[in-house]
Amino acid sequence: MIQVTEALTIIAENSSKMPLQNRAVSKALGYVLAETVYSPIVMPPFRQSAMDGYAFIHSEKHQYNVISVSRAGDHSNIKLKENEAVRIFTGAFVPDDADTVVMQEHVMANENSILISRMPEKFANVRAKGEQIKKDEVVFEVNTLITPAAIGFLACLGITEVTVYKKPKVAILVTGNELVKPGKKLPKGKIYESNSVMLKAALQTIGVEKTKVFKVKDNLKATKKALKDILEKYDVVLISGGISVGDYDFVKEALLKNGVKELFYKINQKPGKPMFFGSKNETLVFALPGNPASSLTNFYVYVYPAIRNRMGFATIHLPKLIRKLNSDVKNTSGKTLFLKALYDETHVTVLDGQSSAMLNTFATANCLLIVPEDAEMIKKEQFVNLLPID
Amino acid sequence: MIQVTEALTIIAENSSKMPLQNRAVSKALGYVLAETVYSPIVMPPFRQSAMDGYAFIHSEKHQYNVISVSRAGDHSNIKLKENEAVRIFTGAFVPDDADTVVMQEHVMANENSILISRMPEKFANVRAKGEQIKKDEVVFEVNTLITPAAIGFLACLGITEVTVYKKPKVAILVTGNELVKPGKKLPKGKIYESNSVMLKAALQTIGVEKTKVFKVKDNLKATKKALKDILEKYDVVLISGGISVGDYDFVKEALLKNGVKELFYKINQKPGKPMFFGSKNETLVFALPGNPASSLTNFYVYVYPAIRNRMGFATIHLPKLIRKLNSDVKNTSGKTLFLKALYDETHVTVLDGQSSAMLNTFATANCLLIVPEDAEMIKKEQFVNLLPID
Repeated sequence: MIQVTEALTIIAENSSKMPLQNRAVSKALGYVLAETVYSPIVMPPFRQSAMDGYAFIHSEKHQYNVISVSRAGDHSNIKLKENEAVRIFTGAFVPDDADTVVMQEHVMANENSILISRMPEKFANVRAKGEQIKKDEVVFEVNTLITPAAIGFLACLGITEVTVYKKPKVAILVTGNELVKPGKKLPKGKIYESNSVMLKAALQTIGVEKTKVFKVKDNLKATKKALKDILEKYDVVLISGGISVGDYDFVKEALLKNGVKELFYKINQKPGKPMFFGSKNETLVFALPGNPASSLTNFYVYVYPAIRNRMGFATIHLPKLIRKLNSDVKNTSGKTLFLKALYDETHVTVLDGQSSAMLNTFATANCLLIVPEDAEMIKKEQFVNLLPID
Repeated sequence: MIQVTEALTIIAENSSKMPLQNRAVSKALGYVLAETVYSPIVMPPFRQSAMDGYAFIHSEKHQYNVISVSRAGDHSNIKLKENEAVRIFTGAFVPDDADTVVMQEHVMANENSILISRMPEKFANVRAKGEQIKKDEVVFEVNTLITPAAIGFLACLGITEVTVYKKPKVAILVTGNELVKPGKKLPKGKIYESNSVMLKAALQTIGVEKTKVFKVKDNLKATKKALKDILEKYDVVLISGGISVGDYDFVKEALLKNGVKELFYKINQKPGKPMFFGSKNETLVFALPGNPASSLTNFYVYVYPAIRNRMGFATIHLPKLIRKLNSDVKNTSGKTLFLKALYDETHVTVLDGQSSAMLNTFATANCLLIVPEDAEMIKKEQFVNLLPID
């Protein structure tokens, strides 16, 4: 049995980056750059007006003849005299001769001339060429997450494709003879199988769409056979159930017989103690506890950073937030506790119903409060760490 | 021109809920419940063992004969005598006679009997029937967001379908003769069109997948024609560009001629002042500024809550966080400022490059800092509000 921090270190050290792929910028949301991107152009590519107004050569004069128009998209580099101005619109090319744009609200205009009622400073309302970025300057460093703003910036530089880390394909293998598919009648002694849809949804929230659920019978032969194929085809394997200490828990044996290297088994925590982590080639294997709430806890604490690491993220763990406790918390277990809790701007409240089987508390919680294994008592108003899951 | 708070109120009041649909629980992630859900079963449906161990009738005795086994999924309601125990596994049915489970780590076992080395309290390690939920009890209230944990909980109650609000279909209409598609050569005076992919990605991050981009020429006739069809088929219409005060901005006219009711035009803010909001029947129309950073700012501040409202969320705006300023902020504009900024646990730092055309700052920012229109100066270490966008 190892401590939580050791488990996290082992996972970080053993989860390799996914292979690379070229991807259209328009379809790259949520991927992570596997290359530093440099700008192919200077942006803006020309001096742009920041306003609707009039471009002119700054002087003491207030009256100008309007001799032409520059609309967004135009490029007529008209010559200007000192008493001449060009009608101009936001984003339009500012003729080389002009140095200043006066906004139209500060002008009295008739058909062919304007009178500036409020003189702007020289160079006002003109965006310099290259103000945003120069050619060959760094747009984004490697390992940057592609957000909507990043997609916008890449597109506005004319970049259509980037090299990113692939997202992992994830298999979810469910074992357990006690499990019945929702929608069917529930025989005595059985329960509905819910971990597969829950884990699939959790993967979806972190951007993993390629998931497949496999169900096998609770025996060594069936599990071994299913795993053989899965281990070859998937980048991450989540196994739900069959990993606690009971006689009927043969998942570990099926893994080892398939050549999966054990990296750890059991973590000194509650809930979520009976977890196996291993690897075969680049494929990572998490055998999660069968209890729904334990399973989801370990998903956020362990599977999440492993997948982020594979996807190329610069930071892989959930951020640790600090809040004050709303009530005393005891921990005489000697284990790290992950408690379902609700945090706000300043405090965190532990919820009722912390049983490892209880998902309703999880559905209400917005964080996991971390109680260290050696903290026997944390008093109300003391600071604690939590992992946000909202 | 109206204030930011008025604009937000008008949007909230004018965005109606989407129609309802029945959806498979397994495909309901990110949807919002349009009904209160009640439990069709009692959960757990029987008394379950919380441990791998032995079920017995609690007494002073330490030695028990093991007369049977209860595996997860089994339901043999064996009779027990005072000196008898049943081998039992996590999640398995606890025979009616037994009241306590001792975990196997606290037992010395030989083939047919056990000696309890550490006696548990009476009722220990037995999960009561209905501990999680009773039949017909409320599972989730109406307007609850369906999260991975919620999917898990619904599935474990055997629920396969729920009634949710549909997600809106969103059209993105791009206007602007200055715009060139990324990947093509950039003629003089033109810029690359980036708002459509950016807005599409931003919609994707809030769970809206059904989006379509339309491009029209910068003239009244083409815009009017395109809008006619779009207004009938989409629930939300985002128009990018063509809404500032310039002579060539005819989008507003095209909207009004198509029967769109103007609800406001122009907001006292920077960036993002020239925005139109209107509606036709249930369809909402946002004509966003053409400048990328202004467009994305107004997406987060205005489009986001409108879409959340249509999707049935109980809370629709981005949460307002409170942090201390890392440096003085001036605001002599008389307008509400939305500044691209970086926040951490305690402070917020305003980033360089606040121009409404600059997306690179947005790609670095994790929040929009709100500077009220009447705050001429906010000093370092004073508290400010911000909207997280990470």
